[in-house]
Amino acid sequence: MTEQQHWNAVFIATSMDGFIAGKDGDISWLDTIPIPEGTDMGYHAFMDRTDAILMGRISFETVLGFGIDWPYAKPVFVWSRRSLTIPDELQEKVFPIQGRTSEVLSQLHALGHRRLYIDGGMTIQSFMKEDLIDEMIITTIPVVLGEGISLFGELHPPTWFRCVQSKIFADAIVQSHYIKNT
Amino acid sequence: MTEQQHWNAVFIATSMDGFIAGKDGDISWLDTIPIPEGTDMGYHAFMDRTDAILMGRISFETVLGFGIDWPYAKPVFVWSRRSLTIPDELQEKVFPIQGRTSEVLSQLHALGHRRLYIDGGMTIQSFMKEDLIDEMIITTIPVVLGEGISLFGELHPPTWFRCVQSKIFADAIVQSHYIKNT
Repeated sequence: MTEQQHWNAVFIATSMDGFIAGKDGDISWLDTIPIPEGTDMGYHAFMDRTDAILMGRISFETVLGFGIDWPYAKPVFVWSRRSLTIPDELQEKVFPIQGRTSEVLSQLHALGHRRLYIDGGMTIQSFMKEDLIDEMIITTIPVVLGEGISLFGELHPPTWFRCVQSKIFADAIVQSHYIKNT
Repeated sequence: MTEQQHWNAVFIATSMDGFIAGKDGDISWLDTIPIPEGTDMGYHAFMDRTDAILMGRISFETVLGFGIDWPYAKPVFVWSRRSLTIPDELQEKVFPIQGRTSEVLSQLHALGHRRLYIDGGMTIQSFMKEDLIDEMIITTIPVVLGEGISLFGELHPPTWFRCVQSKIFADAIVQSHYIKNT
């Protein structure tokens, strides 16, 4: 039944060599290629079908540091062992969450958040390690960085997906949509 | 002029996390997904437009170790500092080559081999480091291996490409065609 459907999905950009950030956390390369006006590379369609976002503290602080309006319409849960400082204006949009992966999922499901956008390197790796990622939409920025922070860490055992769709944007960027192989 | 055209291209399969071989050199995962009869994922079309293949000693010995008929119709140059044992039946198909990257290219160009298939992890990395790869056709096997031998090593500075085409095979495998951004 559709109402019981739940999944954990990743929507992220990487370099050709699999980095989500370059040396010293540099992410300027993400925006180097001009994207035609009106193209969001599927971001809003993806967001529309998610219930909530789960990210780590580092990602949360990175987004805060952009100094832009809060970009998420869906509730954001920040997974951190440490206590979190949430700005007043985000008290109804951002929530701390703690516990092991399974406990975090139980809490989110109990709140009715079944379709989760899993974001941030460490959070994604934690979910990958427990084989809890069902879907990945990976946008490959066509640069070989040579060094940086990897999307995927060490994993055991290997995890199989299948690529169900692939699209090119701006004659340069390829986005591949992977579904967990079941 | 077309006759003066020369390029160095990579045609290789990697895991989603960028490995060309798994732990202990395991490549069994490359053939896990059944490919429909008659589909070669562009391999012969690519081979048809190459003049010669350059690979390292490890790749050469790996191919020899497959115990199959020699698979290459084009001349294969094996780049190795060490002396090479070439089986008698391959004396007219396989040739040792030595020297720095630029010297290897000069030798191959002098022989009329202008369109080169650069193969093998270390050879590709040597060419990448000197910004000598013009084209990459990367077939992504949809598995996150977690560990193995990386296609890309450390690089300075970053190298930009653009993805000009992307295709899906067997409802699972995505192949992306990158051209050097000039």
